[in-house]
Amino acid sequence: MYVELITTGSELLLGATLNSHQQWIGRQLAELGLPVSRQVTVPDSGTAIADAVAEALSRADLIITTGGLGPTADDRTRDEIARLLGLPLTEDPEVLRQIEAVFQRRNRPLPPNFATLAAIQARVPAGALVLKNEHGSAPGLAMKLPAGANAAHPRWLIMLPGPPRELQPIFRDHVLPLLRANCPECGGFIAHTLHTFGVGESRVEDAIRPRLAELESRGLEIGYCARTGEVDVRLTATGAAARELVAEAAGRVRRLLGKFIYSEDQRSLEAVVIELLRASRQRLVTAESCTGGYVAHCLTNVPGASEVFLGGMVTYSNELKQTLLGVRPETLAAHGAVSEPTAREMAAGGRERYHADFAIAITGIAGPGGGTAEKPVGTVYIGLASRDEVTVVRQENAFDRETFKVVTARQSLELLRHQLLGMRPAGHEKNPQAQTCGH
Amino acid sequence: MYVELITTGSELLLGATLNSHQQWIGRQLAELGLPVSRQVTVPDSGTAIADAVAEALSRADLIITTGGLGPTADDRTRDEIARLLGLPLTEDPEVLRQIEAVFQRRNRPLPPNFATLAAIQARVPAGALVLKNEHGSAPGLAMKLPAGANAAHPRWLIMLPGPPRELQPIFRDHVLPLLRANCPECGGFIAHTLHTFGVGESRVEDAIRPRLAELESRGLEIGYCARTGEVDVRLTATGAAARELVAEAAGRVRRLLGKFIYSEDQRSLEAVVIELLRASRQRLVTAESCTGGYVAHCLTNVPGASEVFLGGMVTYSNELKQTLLGVRPETLAAHGAVSEPTAREMAAGGRERYHADFAIAITGIAGPGGGTAEKPVGTVYIGLASRDEVTVVRQENAFDRETFKVVTARQSLELLRHQLLGMRPAGHEKNPQAQTCGH
Repeated sequence: MYVELITTGSELLLGATLNSHQQWIGRQLAELGLPVSRQVTVPDSGTAIADAVAEALSRADLIITTGGLGPTADDRTRDEIARLLGLPLTEDPEVLRQIEAVFQRRNRPLPPNFATLAAIQARVPAGALVLKNEHGSAPGLAMKLPAGANAAHPRWLIMLPGPPRELQPIFRDHVLPLLRANCPECGGFIAHTLHTFGVGESRVEDAIRPRLAELESRGLEIGYCARTGEVDVRLTATGAAARELVAEAAGRVRRLLGKFIYSEDQRSLEAVVIELLRASRQRLVTAESCTGGYVAHCLTNVPGASEVFLGGMVTYSNELKQTLLGVRPETLAAHGAVSEPTAREMAAGGRERYHADFAIAITGIAGPGGGTAEKPVGTVYIGLASRDEVTVVRQENAFDRETFKVVTARQSLELLRHQLLGMRPAGHEKNPQAQTCGH
Repeated sequence: MYVELITTGSELLLGATLNSHQQWIGRQLAELGLPVSRQVTVPDSGTAIADAVAEALSRADLIITTGGLGPTADDRTRDEIARLLGLPLTEDPEVLRQIEAVFQRRNRPLPPNFATLAAIQARVPAGALVLKNEHGSAPGLAMKLPAGANAAHPRWLIMLPGPPRELQPIFRDHVLPLLRANCPECGGFIAHTLHTFGVGESRVEDAIRPRLAELESRGLEIGYCARTGEVDVRLTATGAAARELVAEAAGRVRRLLGKFIYSEDQRSLEAVVIELLRASRQRLVTAESCTGGYVAHCLTNVPGASEVFLGGMVTYSNELKQTLLGVRPETLAAHGAVSEPTAREMAAGGRERYHADFAIAITGIAGPGGGTAEKPVGTVYIGLASRDEVTVVRQENAFDRETFKVVTARQSLELLRHQLLGMRPAGHEKNPQAQTCGH
């Protein structure tokens, strides 16, 4: 099945916003066994939307569009597609009632031009199914297009509103059931992803490929996706033996990459760490300087984090390092805020003062300013205090400011994950500069 | 000029990663006056890349591809495009030397199969310009394609490596100068974006459109982009009068939307707040419960934040609310952790204890669990303490957990921005449930 996703909006092409729909819808469809074959972004002006849909109709079995269903003048998707297909638009009284109901639930007064706005969004192309929008005005629309000159069999064309908190529930509640009911092929495609941290892409490939060659010859496909410090290994197959083939391959990858695999199939590193803490009934605090609260933010994105995450200190200033964590003024004077002894005292002090089982402490130079010859921008000390010891690792994360935060946070969570699993830290294997100092 | 961006990678289509290149490159090209006309994502398998490039060649003046230049088997862009254009690939000794130099600068041993990996990435299609990669192996490649059957004039085809920290410097250092030198039209396109927070999209349009109708008739284009709580107003024009037209329109929008505009042209709300603090030499601390460090993270993304941001407390547990912020046990017992009095004591305590001019305090229910009839999921109290008073606002941010954090953080920064500018909080204008309680 050829699936084409058309995201509309000049703001995407001008770079004003990230194309988060591409990721979210792509993931949903991949899990269903209908991976997106092509994605296109077109502006919400002129005939670009109709042109893209016309092209997609010539090759795709399923077309999904996002955006352009709202009430403003640059919302053109519904009209352009109706025009392209030669379908009249009719105001649907049931949709009108739903739009009114959504406004009333919000407990806010109707805007003065409500009737006009609602009427625009309540227009439905002849023959389209209405996909109810519980969180906004414009509903989704689904059309089954007959086979014809361009296509040997019927195709589906689905239009979804742009705001994610409207699009996502409509997709889950209405589009997924519709696709399941209409897709005889779904289920034949199996995908499985293993997420690794701390080994380079070519080392991952070198380790895996020779051991999976035979499975590849039987139809397994292997994909690698490298981000800074991370490599995803994606295993896919289609057909009757797909599930076995992927399971066998995943087992081999697990044996080959061992402790570098932090999760499988989308579970985040922070979710894994929270779960390990919960399972062992242990509690964590964070003491962050240069990552500025990012580690705490990641941890608290996990629902239920409050059971094991007591809280965190963002001690940007030296004064706060002393008053909140008990770092000694002599330590700061002798070694500086970015140093092994400071990281050690931050971790130990944070853990003891706030009655936690573990403390993560981070102090470094995020840049762009503040580097020296001895401690260049990117230098960071990561401390992990447990009841028994304090471990401090030095890393050189010479990236831009935000990447620095992300990489450093993940290194600190990996340190804790390995500790929770009773593994030796993987740090010094991946980075010759890293040092691990028990005390 | 018709610009087409082709991002390659199955990981994008499967939703494993966000398409951040689309945003970054889109923004760079828009600023240059060459807005992207169409963006396509294709998988890194089969002939999809060549098919997409062939299609783009039939309509585009400039084609940029990202990804697929690395050493692994799913890196096919270079080969597919050379095959499509009928160009031989030759190993470039200078590129080989550069790849070796990058490895040596990293101070790491060469991998055993280095020669093979380097040779793959050093192959250059006949006639292509090599765009030096200072941060990785594979260089970018630029080709000027002659006019021919498909095109009346020469076109540029540029291939860039996928990793952002390789792609971005190549783009800035080599692609932008190349485009400036080869684009007679650049400079005729003007874009300006005003970022608003706290008014709905249709209210923004209603306020603006009638006052800009006359400018629209002279060629101004207006676009709206709504995210949760935010609306960007994008003004664009082309031609000789473009700059005047956009400036006049921006002036009118400023007068109409006043304090809802927090910045113009991409400056983030947190950068604006940091700058206002710096200009007035005032210092800030944060005391976050349900936002879990997200406000501190946003603030510390701004280079130089350490001058005005002393640090933050992430007081998830009640115990930490007491020990770190001085919230009284009686307050917690009588009103609960999510309450106006708790937010007030968190803000006042945080500001006094840590010797700051301002403290932002946030306590609420991020969900999915923890809601009650009186305080449903999404309820949050935001406190702002200054030397003179403590203001507490109640908001209902009934979103998913991450959206809750983002919206709440922005509301808290807006509260501070308005305070720093001597404005009354805009909160109660946009939300009838909001209450503002000076003391």
